[in-house]
Amino acid sequence: MLVDGKICKTIWCKNKKVFIIDQTKLPFIFKTICLHTLEDFCNSISNMKVRGAPLIGVTAAFGMANSMLNDQSDYNIKYSYEKLLSTRPTAVNLIWSLNIMRSELLKTQKDLRIKNAFKIAEKISKNDENACEKIGEYGCEILKDIFRKKQKIVNILTHCNAGWLAAVDWGTALAPIFKAKRKKIPIHVWVDETRPRNQGALLTAWELEKEKIPYTIIVDNAGGHLMKKKAVDICIVGSDRTALNGDVCNKIGTYLKALAAHDNSIPFYVALPSSTIDKNLKEGLGKIKIEERSGKELSFVNSFDGKKIKDTEIYFKNANVYNPAFDVTPAAYISGLITEFGICKANKIEIAKKLKI
Amino acid sequence: MLVDGKICKTIWCKNKKVFIIDQTKLPFIFKTICLHTLEDFCNSISNMKVRGAPLIGVTAAFGMANSMLNDQSDYNIKYSYEKLLSTRPTAVNLIWSLNIMRSELLKTQKDLRIKNAFKIAEKISKNDENACEKIGEYGCEILKDIFRKKQKIVNILTHCNAGWLAAVDWGTALAPIFKAKRKKIPIHVWVDETRPRNQGALLTAWELEKEKIPYTIIVDNAGGHLMKKKAVDICIVGSDRTALNGDVCNKIGTYLKALAAHDNSIPFYVALPSSTIDKNLKEGLGKIKIEERSGKELSFVNSFDGKKIKDTEIYFKNANVYNPAFDVTPAAYISGLITEFGICKANKIEIAKKLKI
Repeated sequence: MLVDGKICKTIWCKNKKVFIIDQTKLPFIFKTICLHTLEDFCNSISNMKVRGAPLIGVTAAFGMANSMLNDQSDYNIKYSYEKLLSTRPTAVNLIWSLNIMRSELLKTQKDLRIKNAFKIAEKISKNDENACEKIGEYGCEILKDIFRKKQKIVNILTHCNAGWLAAVDWGTALAPIFKAKRKKIPIHVWVDETRPRNQGALLTAWELEKEKIPYTIIVDNAGGHLMKKKAVDICIVGSDRTALNGDVCNKIGTYLKALAAHDNSIPFYVALPSSTIDKNLKEGLGKIKIEERSGKELSFVNSFDGKKIKDTEIYFKNANVYNPAFDVTPAAYISGLITEFGICKANKIEIAKKLKI
Repeated sequence: MLVDGKICKTIWCKNKKVFIIDQTKLPFIFKTICLHTLEDFCNSISNMKVRGAPLIGVTAAFGMANSMLNDQSDYNIKYSYEKLLSTRPTAVNLIWSLNIMRSELLKTQKDLRIKNAFKIAEKISKNDENACEKIGEYGCEILKDIFRKKQKIVNILTHCNAGWLAAVDWGTALAPIFKAKRKKIPIHVWVDETRPRNQGALLTAWELEKEKIPYTIIVDNAGGHLMKKKAVDICIVGSDRTALNGDVCNKIGTYLKALAAHDNSIPFYVALPSSTIDKNLKEGLGKIKIEERSGKELSFVNSFDGKKIKDTEIYFKNANVYNPAFDVTPAAYISGLITEFGICKANKIEIAKKLKI
């Protein structure tokens, strides 16, 4: 995607050195950093310098590759696997990409492990990019259909950031929007602020601003009102983990928006690469470990004084807080899943058919 | 209610001087101020130094009384009425109390207008206090019932601040909670942060802290997840305007919580003094003017450095924002209305019967 006119990705590798955008500094400062050690990779995931299910998976794959530079032993493959796996508990792409890396590397001769590790990680990265672009193409057809019927600007509501910053390129929920822009379908995006980390207000709005796509930030509370007012034509969100029956685990608050969409007969789509489908998970409700993050994410916010990003306390000292990071939206409230293999209903049979699981 | 052990109200009058708590400084600084001019009263309402439907009504009544000190003419009664009415568009208590003041004062001899104005305003204030205490008593019975069946801590979710700071004393949604505390019913309150102005995190949490009632602040996105997890036994919220059919206009985001409560078979109650019922409003959906406030309420937040409260920008410059302040919850999602006359179903017949409208 474009950043001030330049083509950019969230993660890239040059001469076995891996670079990322430090997303904790966005939208105030655009800074790229090089990850040198296994610890750098782990921290970049757990501290959310990189975030979004697809990007977490790709970063972990490169983390395994990087770790091979120092030590190509079986022990180190297993050690790096465990270390990277412990960084975030909910996104299934993390375990998915780590499983690929581990099994491929254990099969590889020691002296070829460095070369192969980077090759596989690059492939996982490229596959993700291609999957997201396909999601964009399939999803764009839905937006085109709405425009064909409505003949007015299509209003899309999205929750959290599932744009290109959450993947390698294109993104998931925003990929159809980026494609629609290129196909000149008139669109406007309602951007949920997405408390507590405000990824909508900070990252999604920044992406749309850079791509010159009209958008408006709203608080997470406002979506239901806008849907009642018929100011929303469609909701598209991402997914951190998807069950085989179509239940979707995504950023906390997604479930509330799905309920409102259902109550107002507004289509509610989830865009996801097939790698976010957990093949060991028959259903999502009550079966997914929901990450509980630090309460500081509520009581402190980032602000920018033009030079430095500051961590500012906005509640009174020692207020009691609780911070679950995800919720599960039942498949019944989901109109469809937009995947790299096409669009399917959020149910066991259609998912199995479309994704050949 | 108690502030550091001392009994306190949100508004009081002494020798024809009216004092309020400046709620924009809470919870960081507890400061009371004296309102001298009509402009002071108007600003205190529009800038939300006082807020909450009942308190807005009482403040406007005292504003009319204060204005009589300078000029007892018919012209000034009408002028002050219009000025005060223009401060906030949604809360019906404002027009309700101003209508009482205007009609009573126009009937009063000029030389008695000052004395009478303060008498009527005091009466409106005292009535509100009594109504809120009755709401507390009726609502407490519901909490008692839940505790009787559950025999464990009763978990209550509330949205925005509808505590004593939103009224003269006791509050609406929190009145049953304050009563339950006094009756030793074990309770815990999930406090919605309530973006964009964070009245839950700032005011409700502060009130509960001062009354030593266990609470936990959550982001507005988290309520649905907690309800799915069965961590919520009941929701209680306030109302800014209630239609005769039971539709409730309240802080933006209330509708989303009502949907989640409905989806999880959790009782969803609205606590309101009968003065918030708009007798000219047959139904609420699409019929209430929803106040649209400045986008700055999203992109700036208050923080406190130990000495001063600062207005800190948290989005990137010139981000597009939209800020509707209320939404309407359809009566179908409301289990009941808790009023000073008792509890009734949110429908036309029961409201008419209970409130004798």
